This record gives sequence, structure tokens and C-alpha cells, in this order.
Amino acid sequence: MANPSLIDLVALRDELRTFTAERDWDQFHTPKNLATALSVEAAELLEHFQWIKTGELSELDDKKQDAIRQELADVLIYLVRLADKLNVDLMTASSEKLTHNRTKYPVEKVRGDSRKYSEY
Amino acid sequence: MANPSLIDLVALRDELRTFTAERDWDQFHTPKNLATALSVEAAELLEHFQWIKTGELSELDDKKQDAIRQELADVLIYLVRLADKLNVDLMTASSEKLTHNRTKYPVEKVRGDSRKYSEY
Amino acid sequence: MANPSLIDLVALRDELRTFTAERDWDQFHTPKNLATALSVEAAELLEHFQWIKTGELSELDDKKQDAIRQELADVLIYLVRLADKLNVDLMTASSEKLTHNRTKYPVEKVRGDSRKYSEY
Amino acid sequence: MANPSLIDLVALRDELRTFTAERDWDQFHTPKNLATALSVEAAELLEHFQWIKTGELSELDDKKQDAIRQELADVLIYLVRLADKLNVDLMTASSEKLTHNRTKYPVEKVRGDSRKYSEY
Repeated sequence: MANPSLIDLVALRDELRTFTAERDWDQFHTPKNLATALSVEAAELLEHFQWIKTGELSELDDKKQDAIRQELADVLIYLVRLADKLNVDLMTASSEKLTHNRTKYPVEKVRGDSRKYSEY
Repeated sequence: MANPSLIDLVALRDELRTFTAERDWDQFHTPKNLATALSVEAAELLEHFQWIKTGELSELDDKKQDAIRQELADVLIYLVRLADKLNVDLMTASSEKLTHNRTKYPVEKVRGDSRKYSEY
Repeated sequence: MANPSLIDLVALRDELRTFTAERDWDQFHTPKNLATALSVEAAELLEHFQWIKTGELSELDDKKQDAIRQELADVLIYLVRLADKLNVDLMTASSEKLTHNRTKYPVEKVRGDSRKYSEY
Repeated sequence: MANPSLIDLVALRDELRTFTAERDWDQFHTPKNLATALSVEAAELLEHFQWIKTGELSELDDKKQDAIRQELADVLIYLVRLADKLNVDLMTASSEKLTHNRTKYPVEKVRGDSRKYSEY
């Protein structure tokens, strides 16, 4: 079922370009609209967890897991599409952010503590 | 600056596992909390677009573009982390979703029309 | 159809207390869960606007307007419920915030300019 | 500090009309933009709860409670502003929604059960 050629985010980006162009949907894909769609999808994902305790797999039956899996895909799809419109390389940006976070939250300072950096 | 080893989502997932374990933050990373964090980051990204027209690059100065780039990274980071906790392979899930969307929105039916499938 | 006794937020708060108690749902209404539900409802409201230009009434047919009206109600319902659990008087808090905003955004400084205060 | 005249949502709506007109901000207040701002504020509110257990008052110190109180006010402010632009009476809409919910979730059927109606 899965397209075996989708091996990385660049491949997904290219598939999405084709999907959008074929449907003439690029006119709706302004960064603002895509950021809105991304936020809406993230909330649809969150909805599955709103009344349960932790969302660990033991709390989720197969039907729920499948629905969540689809929402995760939707979030990635809009994220890749938005990054494409803004010329952002997601892997490089994430790598840089992680390097930044390692400095911002040094192990010895934050170990076992969930407070935000700004609260220190 | 970027870690050259971060070539795909699997590499990012592994880096995030290490980052979290080193800080003993796994205790906070329930799927529910991660889904919440993902939604909050998506809204922080959206905030940059809320009062502007389209968000095309011409509307965004360098400072804004850099802030957006960091928010895009944050969304990806929480998305990868959440998918990891739920044993979801994001590339496979996205590929399947795209196959599903091709059937749900056939080119000849939806060309140039933004209405949701449910509205047809 | 409408309950004529619902004349203000205090009346709505009291109705919601009864509604929740009758269903034994207070156990699910932690502030965290209510804040999540509020955010999810706000996104469902936003979804109606994601692919359209401005959302002015001329862009919304009757069916869409009715759906939006119901989402607006859902947002208010969870907002009132959450404020109740946190002992916050919404009218007083809003009045104080508005007073604060008048000082933060003086007319002569921000007239016709949408930039956030932090950008000045 | 609070404006004593803010006794209900109609008074708040009128204050917001004045506040917006004085700043010539009505041009930015399309329903789409206001729905976006509302969703962003709801997420800022949610952020305060993302890593904690339940958000009960005992988990929140005074500083946190004050920040949350201000976010609650921001959500109400944008909600009232958006409803105004769409000619929706929030009290009537909420009253009708509550009547609807009483039928949709009959006490004898849902008592102590958090599942959504659609899951029955």
C-alpha cells in the first residue's frame, strides 16, 4: 500500500508538490493557510487524548491507534508543505534547534525537571 | 553548526531519545503531554501569520523567517517524539495517507476547488 | 428553545455545574483537560476559516454560519467551565486585561498598525 | 482597577468595539484573523498546563495563576470580538448548545463515561 519511494522528507515534499499541482490547489496553499491547517490537524490529533490519563498505548484500542496514526501523517504532510513554501530544510532546521536546545537545557541543570528555561 | 548525521527522521528520533534520556525527561513525555506540546508549538508557528495577508516570503523579514524556521523545527521535534512513543513510522504513515488522499480527492473532481471532501 | 434564564456568565457557569454533576463528569474536568478541550474547540472553529479569504459573512452560507455559531458556543462553554475550576471571574479578568491593553497599546502609538507590542 | 461598567458580554462587546475603532484595527479584524487569534490564545493558555499532572489550583503558584487568568481573559476578548463580527449572540448560542447537549448526552446513558457521543 505504501509508496516505497517515500524514503525521506525530500521525497515526501516532491510527492506533495505533484499532488497539489495536479489539483490546482497551490492557490490555496499560502503559508498562512498552511500554518492554519497544520494547527487544526495538531488539534485533531490532540483531541484523541483530551479526556484520557496519559495516552500510553495500553489506553488506546486499535481503532484509536489507527486514527491517531492518520492524524500524525496529516501533521507531517502540512508541515512539509509549509516548510517547502518557506524554503526551509526541516532536517537542517531541526538539527540546529536540537544543538541550540542542548546548550539551553544543560543536562546537569535540568535533569528531571520539566520547568521551562524561562522559569529558571 | 548542524549535526551532519541527521539525515532522516530515524536519525532525528534517535537523537531525541538520547536528548530526553540524558535529562531524565521521559517521565514527562507521555503521549498526551507530547500531543499537547505539539499543538502548542503549532500555534506558536501560526501566531507569526495571524495578522498578515498570506505569509508569502515577501511579507516576512529575516528576523521573522528565522523565528518561523525555529517553530517549524519545534513542531517536527515533538511530532517525531510523539510518533516514537506510539510506535508509528511517520514516513510509512504519510505515504499511506497520501495514497488515501489521492483516492478521496480525485483530480477530475476537485481540481481548483478547496471544499472539504465532506462538503461534496 | 433557548433557556431564558441564561442571562449572564454566572448563570451559564451554574448551568454547567449542574450539567456536569448530573453526568458525574467532574472527574474528567481537571483544569488541564478543560484547557485541552478549549483549545480543540477553538481549532474546530478555526477549521471553518482555513481555506477562505476573510470569513466575512458574505463568504459563509447558512449551514456554515450555523456550524460556526455552535463552535463559538462550545468555546464559551469550556472557557466558563475552566474559569470556574480556577476561581477566575471572567468579566473582572477581561475588564482588567482591557485596561492593561489600553496602556500597552496607546492610541497615538499603534493607530492602524497590527504589529505586536513586542515588535515596537 | 476593573471597569465597573463591564457587567456582561454586551458591555464587553461594546468596549471592544470602541477599543478597536480608536486604534483603527478593525481592518485587521476579519473573522478569519480573529478565529486565528482566538486559537493562538487558547494554545497560550494550554501551554501553562502541558507538563503538569492536572492543573488543579494546588499545582499552580500565584504567578502562574495570574498568567492563566490573563490568558482566560484574552480568549474571552477574542471570542466576543469574533462573535460580534459574525452577529452571533454568545449567550443565546450557548444556551441552545446546552439544551442540545442535554439531549445528546442523556444522564442515564453517559453517567461517569467520558467517551464522545460518536463512540456509542
